[in-house]
Amino acid sequence: MSSITRKLLTIITESALERVLVEEIERLGAHGFTITEARGKGRRGPRDATWDKSSNIRIEIVCDELTAQSIANNLQAHYYEHYGMILFMSDVAVLRPEKF
Amino acid sequence: MSSITRKLLTIITESALERVLVEEIERLGAHGFTITEARGKGRRGPRDATWDKSSNIRIEIVCDELTAQSIANNLQAHYYEHYGMILFMSDVAVLRPEKF
Amino acid sequence: MSSITRKLLTIITESALERVLVEEIERLGAHGFTITEARGKGRRGPRDATWDKSSNIRIEIVCDELTAQSIANNLQAHYYEHYGMILFMSDVAVLRPEKF
Repeated sequence: MSSITRKLLTIITESALERVLVEEIERLGAHGFTITEARGKGRRGPRDATWDKSSNIRIEIVCDELTAQSIANNLQAHYYEHYGMILFMSDVAVLRPEKF
Repeated sequence: MSSITRKLLTIITESALERVLVEEIERLGAHGFTITEARGKGRRGPRDATWDKSSNIRIEIVCDELTAQSIANNLQAHYYEHYGMILFMSDVAVLRPEKF
Repeated sequence: MSSITRKLLTIITESALERVLVEEIERLGAHGFTITEARGKGRRGPRDATWDKSSNIRIEIVCDELTAQSIANNLQAHYYEHYGMILFMSDVAVLRPEKF
C-alpha cells in the first residue's frame, strides 16, 4: 500500500452546529469530511455543566497537520467554550494521499 | 493547539447492552462517551461462533489511561465472553484536556 | 488489560458498494467488520471531481497487518479510481486478540 501519514481530526459536537462547522472546515482548507449521527454525554465548558444531548454529530476530517491545527485553533477560539464539543486527533496512514 | 494525550477507547457491542454499559462506564470514572448506531459481523466468544447482529452500537470514550484500563478490565471480566463485543484503544491528542 | 497491537482499517465510501466490499473483505481474511451510516464530502478520483453523497458508509475492520495490506491493495486496484472512497489505517491495542 502506497500511503502517507495524515492527521485524523475527530470533532464530536451538537447537531445544531453542523452547517456552520462545515463552512469553517472547508474555508480552513479541508478537502473532505465525514459526518455520522451520534448521541452521548460529556462535560460542557469550564463550569463543568453536563452536556447530554440526544442529537450530536461526529465529524471526521483527514488532512495535513497544518490544516488540522488551523481547524482546532479556530474551533477552540469560537466554539469550545459555548457548546458541547470535544476534539481529538491522531496520525493515520492514508491510501492515495493526493486526495487530501 | 494546547493538547494532551489521552486514550480513545472504542467498544463495539450489542445494542441490548447500552444501558448497563453506560452505567458501568460512568461508575468507573469516564466523564463522557459517544454512541453511534452500527451493524456488523464478528467472532463471538471462545467457541468461534459468529456474531452477526443488525443492531450494534459503537461507544467511544476519551479518558486517562487508568480509567481506560479499568473499563477494559471490567468489560473483559463481565461481558467479553458472553456477548458479541470488541474493544480497542489508541492514543489521541485532545484539545482542552480539562474536560476529560 | 491483556492486549495486542492490530491494525484498525477504516474505509469511507458510497453505500452502493456495501455488499461487494463486505464479500471482498471476508474473502481477504477479515474476521469481522463494523458499518456505520455516514454522509460527507470528498475529492473523487484523479480528475478532482467532488464526491458529495448523502448516503455513505464507514467500514471499520480490526485485523492483522497482512490482512489490512491485502484489503488496502485490493480496494486500491479495483475501486479507488472509480468510486468516492477514502481508506486510512492506524495501530490499536485490542482486547482479547484471539477474536481477530
